[in-house]
Amino acid sequence: MKLCHSTSSPNSRRVRMFIAEKGISTPLHPVNLGEKEQFSDWFKAVNPRQQVPVLVLDDDTKIAEVPAIWRYLEETHPERPWLGSDARSKALVAMWERRVELDGFAPTMEGVRNAVAGLKGRALSGPHDYEQIPELVERSKRRVANFYTDFDARLKESPFASGAEFSAADITALVTVDFATAGLKMPIPDQAHALQHWYEKVADRPSAKA
Amino acid sequence: MKLCHSTSSPNSRRVRMFIAEKGISTPLHPVNLGEKEQFSDWFKAVNPRQQVPVLVLDDDTKIAEVPAIWRYLEETHPERPWLGSDARSKALVAMWERRVELDGFAPTMEGVRNAVAGLKGRALSGPHDYEQIPELVERSKRRVANFYTDFDARLKESPFASGAEFSAADITALVTVDFATAGLKMPIPDQAHALQHWYEKVADRPSAKA
Repeated sequence: MKLCHSTSSPNSRRVRMFIAEKGISTPLHPVNLGEKEQFSDWFKAVNPRQQVPVLVLDDDTKIAEVPAIWRYLEETHPERPWLGSDARSKALVAMWERRVELDGFAPTMEGVRNAVAGLKGRALSGPHDYEQIPELVERSKRRVANFYTDFDARLKESPFASGAEFSAADITALVTVDFATAGLKMPIPDQAHALQHWYEKVADRPSAKA
Repeated sequence: MKLCHSTSSPNSRRVRMFIAEKGISTPLHPVNLGEKEQFSDWFKAVNPRQQVPVLVLDDDTKIAEVPAIWRYLEETHPERPWLGSDARSKALVAMWERRVELDGFAPTMEGVRNAVAGLKGRALSGPHDYEQIPELVERSKRRVANFYTDFDARLKESPFASGAEFSAADITALVTVDFATAGLKMPIPDQAHALQHWYEKVADRPSAKA
């Protein structure tokens, strides 16, 4: 088993953090996005969507998409269950992780991809070309600002994103905050005290360096 | 347990089909989107994202987001496992279901929401208002056309979306085709023979009427 990834890919980081939280060891195979290696013939055969990360199993099965990779790792390494431990908590982790992704991570990605000069004509990752839409940059920033407000409200009533315990939802949220800070110059707002407190806790976990 | 849903909501249909394929019986509580019942106080308490479907458990836990509801139903009713039966197939169903959602379902929704007069100022569902962006309508249609081409190619090599067996990925794909046909006037292209053949098989399942 090996993980095709990039250190500059926030989605890759979501998987590296999960692996670190599992305490397992997986060889990492870097894909150089700066040199457009994701469009190479060898990588297209690994993932027709031309995206990292991809987990390649020993039988050559290729698992792409962050939640799918997480699911495989959770099933094969059930100790430290970061996707929930019973039917109810599995559903709640899935719900909150997805809310963080749809309301926070996805608009951050959309804002960056529609703004960066190097992604002109490549506003969406994948095998097809789409032009940037400048209006989406401003809309994305408003969406990320709303995410910060809503997620801060959530963290006033819950220590972690999906409940009392750390879960994969916190991984997506941490990666989102760091990505929005670096990519959109949108750090956590000063008034979002619950979010700030949560961030300090989660960023202090060793996995955050993965 | 009951499902808050709407007959006009494609996401609700994804859950109703899953329930039908499970062969379980769940009371349905209609939420009238035409009368904007999703913005009512009672429903905001059920789901702060103000979206159907939501599964409400007997202990009053609210599970929103289609994959989260599916996960709960699969864990509590493990017979007929539509999310995969072992670690590898669980990951592959998650991967293919997500590809169908991101490449097909999501652009269909984006195209419809940015075009329909009744959704002016409401281009994204949820608690926040965003103006429609006309450029997204045309881009969405190109994305759905690309999805049809890519998914047809997939179905030339695989009888169902995620492999040899029907799975939740086929549910999302069927709902996507019907939604794109009705909402964007984009039926399956004539030349997409594998996709057409797959559609006839899946649309013929009793669950398609759910």
